[in-house]
Amino acid sequence: MFQTFEVTSSPDTGPARLAAVRAEMSARKLDGFLVPRADRFQGEYVASCDERLSWLTGFTGSAGFSCVLNDIAGVFIDGRYRVQVRDQVADVFTPVHWPEVQLADWLKEQLPEGGVVGFDPWLYSVGQIRDLRGKLDRTGIKLVGHTNLVDAVWEDRPAPPRKPICIQPDELAGERFEDKCSRLGTALEKDGLRRAFIALPDSICWLLNIRGSDIPRNPVMQAYAILDWTDHVHLFTDAKIDADVAAHLSDEMDLVTTYPLNDLAGFFAKAERATFQIDPATTPQAVLDLLEAKRAVDQSVQIVEGPDPCILPKARKNAVEVGGSRAAHLRDGAAMVRFLTWLDAEAPKGDLTEIDVVTALEGFRRDTNVLQDISFETISGAGPNGAIVHYRVNEDTNRVVTPGDLLLVDSGGQYLDGTTDITRTIAIGDIGGDEKTCFTRVLQGMIAISRVRFPKGVAGSDLDALARYPLWLAGQDYDHGTGHGVGSYLSVHEGPQGLSRRAKTPLEVGMILSNEPGYYREGDFGIRIENLIVVREADAVTGCDARAMLDFETLTYVPLDRRLIDATLLTRDEQAWIDQYHSDTLQKIGPLVDGSALAWLQAACAPL
Amino acid sequence: MFQTFEVTSSPDTGPARLAAVRAEMSARKLDGFLVPRADRFQGEYVASCDERLSWLTGFTGSAGFSCVLNDIAGVFIDGRYRVQVRDQVADVFTPVHWPEVQLADWLKEQLPEGGVVGFDPWLYSVGQIRDLRGKLDRTGIKLVGHTNLVDAVWEDRPAPPRKPICIQPDELAGERFEDKCSRLGTALEKDGLRRAFIALPDSICWLLNIRGSDIPRNPVMQAYAILDWTDHVHLFTDAKIDADVAAHLSDEMDLVTTYPLNDLAGFFAKAERATFQIDPATTPQAVLDLLEAKRAVDQSVQIVEGPDPCILPKARKNAVEVGGSRAAHLRDGAAMVRFLTWLDAEAPKGDLTEIDVVTALEGFRRDTNVLQDISFETISGAGPNGAIVHYRVNEDTNRVVTPGDLLLVDSGGQYLDGTTDITRTIAIGDIGGDEKTCFTRVLQGMIAISRVRFPKGVAGSDLDALARYPLWLAGQDYDHGTGHGVGSYLSVHEGPQGLSRRAKTPLEVGMILSNEPGYYREGDFGIRIENLIVVREADAVTGCDARAMLDFETLTYVPLDRRLIDATLLTRDEQAWIDQYHSDTLQKIGPLVDGSALAWLQAACAPL
Repeated sequence: MFQTFEVTSSPDTGPARLAAVRAEMSARKLDGFLVPRADRFQGEYVASCDERLSWLTGFTGSAGFSCVLNDIAGVFIDGRYRVQVRDQVADVFTPVHWPEVQLADWLKEQLPEGGVVGFDPWLYSVGQIRDLRGKLDRTGIKLVGHTNLVDAVWEDRPAPPRKPICIQPDELAGERFEDKCSRLGTALEKDGLRRAFIALPDSICWLLNIRGSDIPRNPVMQAYAILDWTDHVHLFTDAKIDADVAAHLSDEMDLVTTYPLNDLAGFFAKAERATFQIDPATTPQAVLDLLEAKRAVDQSVQIVEGPDPCILPKARKNAVEVGGSRAAHLRDGAAMVRFLTWLDAEAPKGDLTEIDVVTALEGFRRDTNVLQDISFETISGAGPNGAIVHYRVNEDTNRVVTPGDLLLVDSGGQYLDGTTDITRTIAIGDIGGDEKTCFTRVLQGMIAISRVRFPKGVAGSDLDALARYPLWLAGQDYDHGTGHGVGSYLSVHEGPQGLSRRAKTPLEVGMILSNEPGYYREGDFGIRIENLIVVREADAVTGCDARAMLDFETLTYVPLDRRLIDATLLTRDEQAWIDQYHSDTLQKIGPLVDGSALAWLQAACAPL
Repeated sequence: MFQTFEVTSSPDTGPARLAAVRAEMSARKLDGFLVPRADRFQGEYVASCDERLSWLTGFTGSAGFSCVLNDIAGVFIDGRYRVQVRDQVADVFTPVHWPEVQLADWLKEQLPEGGVVGFDPWLYSVGQIRDLRGKLDRTGIKLVGHTNLVDAVWEDRPAPPRKPICIQPDELAGERFEDKCSRLGTALEKDGLRRAFIALPDSICWLLNIRGSDIPRNPVMQAYAILDWTDHVHLFTDAKIDADVAAHLSDEMDLVTTYPLNDLAGFFAKAERATFQIDPATTPQAVLDLLEAKRAVDQSVQIVEGPDPCILPKARKNAVEVGGSRAAHLRDGAAMVRFLTWLDAEAPKGDLTEIDVVTALEGFRRDTNVLQDISFETISGAGPNGAIVHYRVNEDTNRVVTPGDLLLVDSGGQYLDGTTDITRTIAIGDIGGDEKTCFTRVLQGMIAISRVRFPKGVAGSDLDALARYPLWLAGQDYDHGTGHGVGSYLSVHEGPQGLSRRAKTPLEVGMILSNEPGYYREGDFGIRIENLIVVREADAVTGCDARAMLDFETLTYVPLDRRLIDATLLTRDEQAWIDQYHSDTLQKIGPLVDGSALAWLQAACAPL
């Protein structure tokens, strides 16, 4: 079982640990210290040794940070975690509503001029520190890089993972890593013989056709890399590299040199006549500090800024990766159909809990025998819990799935050929008409994105409103983006593509995205419907002067709960889309299931 | 008659004038000189004395510029004018496709390192020159401000207009100008006792509740102004100010001091201990040059950048301005209905021309006896001419409106209480099904914008795709924004609000916009449907937890050509919207017309 349900954190340990950190602060003459959730690799998930925020405060949310001062310790959390933080942290900590309250403004209030706040420069990107220092400009408050005070007092801190690396075979990657390196190296050569520092483990995994197991949910290792304009890669990692992987990396061209993670500083110290390119959005401040220290003594070393060279090529999946994703989604879809069959049989008994749902679903995915991991903690929210957008059930919150509930299940699997992410909202027993009306509006938004075709150059920000329009007309909305990028057996949240007002990157062929509008009525119910889609060249439309455009191929094929659709609200085109989607689903998933699951699927895929 | 149809420019005069400018260039040791279409006031229309571009090249388009070098003279024009430019300029000029080809890149190609290009610093904004110099950085090509070489050789150049200023009464402006000055002055005081330079005539007209008559189509005078944090306004203009206007401006508080336009330099020279705020987007480079010259000798004068303080307040129409716009639109709507009645009667005779259409329409607007001007040159495009987005008919292009044509008529009126802008596409005789299908799609996009409601914070860029969606699904699109801001008896094109991917300003209550999707099939036909709309607080939706949102009130009430609507393509909601729009139109416009016009209106407003 990947997912666990015990209440991992308790407020009790907070006060003593906070006191210890404060003792360190005064010993180091600091007026404050920042404790982010991030690790050195800017990922969404972190290894247990990097769970500093929850270790110190008890808060286990996926986003947030703490700022410890002598007489106040703020825990900055966004709207998703207002409730959770109250249960998880002791009253020695003060929850702060972020981003409404910005750290800089909070510090100006809490600290006298001349106050000195420490931070671990490995845990903050160049861009984050630049931004924060900009906002503290002329306040007299100083932000200084410092060794990590939490690590200094965390006695039984787990060791770093150092787990094995494995090869992502060319049959799944679709491009030899040597070719990727030469493609990207050539661009760095054109830009003036650059050496690109790569901070993101999933970028490194994509570039070298490898995967790791250091981080839960994301098949990556803890690593940094430098790609030279000569195509040579310097890989810095402590992950286990067996003979096969070593052979893969040291191919006929000896393209990759590996170093222990800690050798990065030494590497920069030895560098000469080199132009290092860093991406301020992902490069740790500590790396810039090392490079600037080197440049101070050797002007032949230059520092330039530029995007992680892997970001866009990684986002544009090649034909093999898209094919793998299709296969993963059919496999995962069959598991989902077995799960939904089981759910419809079990739910009426009235004793099913949210945890039972998570456990059963993971079981059906494991039955594929090729599940590597779940791609994130399954969200299983019944009734009011469905309205908590990032709900993660545990033994304390576990609710019995009760007739009359809407059950929102958002889950995904990590398979060698692809990463899946699907949300279905299921009717448990009889559901009120209002819920059905809202469900239908959310579905109409999801269909609008599924059907759209658009000219090249259009970004996700241009399409976001199409998914909200049916809700907007009813004065309703949802407070999250419509979709995020998804990796190829990598992170389930991958940039730069997206479907939200923030997603300014033009959509390109091969980009995989989620399409997941929702609606949440606090204390009552939550609705979200999510398919993954991939950008492709649209088929030509018949009729003269049709322009070349892009559209979305749907990857996810799992029935939508027809019991929740109010067909009277649908346009002919929307109803036709649903019926076509269900007949495609039956045709694609039918052959992969049998018995009761097949019977259930046939019924679920009947025309409206 | 406001609009004229003679062919104003001829290519013949170009070569001699170009030679004269080149002679000046060599006399002044310049390798090139820039001739923009803009005047000193960055407006869309310019006085005849400022028509330098068409005087030199013959090109009369509303956008573009020329760059004269010794052995080539480029005329930079965008996609709208590719055809027109070929007819209008002699072959001593080389049309350049802009913005595909950027001026900087073209100069790099055409000029040797060390080349010196002159420009008139009054005709370019600070931002434009900064941008251009940035792009020429490290090319060795120098851009130098210089007296205008066209003016130097333009012998019979018309005198500047110097026409009368009139008062825009408070009953139409809705806010006393003293109150506007104090509102904006207070903000400048908070920002550190600033004095804001205002370069836009329509900003100055709005601020002081005055209008001018120096510029065709836009009721503004040629003027600059400086608003002090003390609320005092320094008005620089050569327009006629009679006793009443003088009394209005020198109110009980003596708030406004007027100066001849040329006193601006002297004003800056005399300034002391002042912080001048300039908007780089609209302030002439010459103004910055003057301020920097002053600062060089007097450090007590500071220069800061900030937006024109009138831009947003001007865009947010108050209740009185919105009420005035409603009245103007009903009056204009009645004139349009009389025009459409006349058109349906005359067109079948088969001898109607595009010019007849423009003349008749202006006549119906003049019959209101309160038309101040047309708000732009009426676009009257029959058949293939309708596909030319910015078509302006003249005696050479004048086409007979032929049965089977779609006739696109885009026009507007300037009334004291509001500025109108409306496009209708009318069926002449029997129209093919393909045209009807395209018309219906365009209409569906226009309806989507008319019906949308949206949360605060949403910008026009977020809504643009809603208008394109029905066309996109058919592989079709249009190469212009969906809508532009509109002034209150001011410019028909007013920023910062808009409905396009470029319009990033959040929409606010009182902003007036056009809603005008279209479709153009080159050489065949053009379709555009345009209403003006104004942002308002949306009525609460019944049903729980509806959020406070904004929506659009429609200002334009003129029938849509039911002969072109394919009702089988419409959703129930779209059809209901059209029927409601037509019944509202009959109810609002019916009382303003009689006889054949009323009969025509009743038929045109029948339910689908």
